[in-house]
Amino acid sequence: MTSKKVVELFYDVASPYSWLGFEVICRYKNMWNIDLKFRPAFLGAVMKGSGNKSPTMVQKKVLYMDKDLNRLRDYFNVPMQHPADPIGVIFKKGSLSAMRFLTAVQEREGGNTKAEQVSRELFLRIWNEDKDITEPGSLSEAAVKAGLSESEIKELLELYTSPKMKDKLKSATQDALDYGAFGFPLLVCHVNSKAEVFFGSDRFELMAHCIGEKWLGPQPEKAHPKL
Amino acid sequence: MTSKKVVELFYDVASPYSWLGFEVICRYKNMWNIDLKFRPAFLGAVMKGSGNKSPTMVQKKVLYMDKDLNRLRDYFNVPMQHPADPIGVIFKKGSLSAMRFLTAVQEREGGNTKAEQVSRELFLRIWNEDKDITEPGSLSEAAVKAGLSESEIKELLELYTSPKMKDKLKSATQDALDYGAFGFPLLVCHVNSKAEVFFGSDRFELMAHCIGEKWLGPQPEKAHPKL
Repeated sequence: MTSKKVVELFYDVASPYSWLGFEVICRYKNMWNIDLKFRPAFLGAVMKGSGNKSPTMVQKKVLYMDKDLNRLRDYFNVPMQHPADPIGVIFKKGSLSAMRFLTAVQEREGGNTKAEQVSRELFLRIWNEDKDITEPGSLSEAAVKAGLSESEIKELLELYTSPKMKDKLKSATQDALDYGAFGFPLLVCHVNSKAEVFFGSDRFELMAHCIGEKWLGPQPEKAHPKL
Repeated sequence: MTSKKVVELFYDVASPYSWLGFEVICRYKNMWNIDLKFRPAFLGAVMKGSGNKSPTMVQKKVLYMDKDLNRLRDYFNVPMQHPADPIGVIFKKGSLSAMRFLTAVQEREGGNTKAEQVSRELFLRIWNEDKDITEPGSLSEAAVKAGLSESEIKELLELYTSPKMKDKLKSATQDALDYGAFGFPLLVCHVNSKAEVFFGSDRFELMAHCIGEKWLGPQPEKAHPKL
């Protein structure tokens, strides 16, 4: 029905590199001939299911990531700030509720627009405002900021803890594992009936090459005048 | 004495991502206003010293790296082939002799030209020809291909196992650890009296931005005509 290449983005709002990847692919989704599908999934289960360890287990990786994220934040123009207690935010509080909520937003909408807006508000809460993303009140606040109506939010708050949404999130997470995920973001590009899988927010140039599109850097709207 | 920015490349021929990083920075070394310094170092000691685990410990990472390296090989135009037994090559045979030999080449030359050529021949042996890099005869063959004379090679074969070369390699490896290394390649850019450290072969676009240079992709000589 369409010649657009399907690109799936598996992500979790607990992952700062997911946010970078999310913003970049959102900037390109109308510039490239792609049909972008958001796949909110649960990073904790991907790490466990793949046997991967968090980079925070290696002290030198933590120090490097800190610098790397600061530089990428500026270069990608994403307003990222480190939470005061990132380990607590990611591992103790976790993102399971938030990802179920996003699953419900997507289920209810049957599309991507609100899922994009609510995802961004959740990324902002955790990675800019250092606010909770686990309580119903927090999810509700994010949804308000994303422009959802009171009645929509009421429905979502009933829906997101349902067995159906729990199963849908599990299923998306399993899909990510089946594509070979050991972390997020994971971009799966369907090219010539083949799934080309890219891990991380640092493979866009290569990905563009593989799907026959042009990479203009992480801020394509500010692309170099000479291009 | 010079306005060129010093860029140090820490690498080990056992690391395929080091080869990609090595070739790309070699392509840019005369295009960018940089003074490139090769820093052959020993990856095994960096992994141990940083407490990092090889990505080969996670099966899904191995499968991903295999695809990732194949795609990057094509996009970067580096003739990489997987050895029949990569684990045996990297972990059982190892690169300690090869990195000591490169240290000696650099010590003897007092420059970069021969170190570049011999490094490339060693990368080719391990990652293209699936040949040994541990025996003196193997190192000698690489040096012959790199254009070194018989007398130079004879000297190098005496020099590379000396305590002085062992210490020099240890010292380079310690420098990498001091810069925060937990793997290779590691690019250290000295900008405004500050060391900006980039891990991996996937930060060149960001690195170019940080040092005020232009990124034209991994094959700048074939840069898009529109640029």
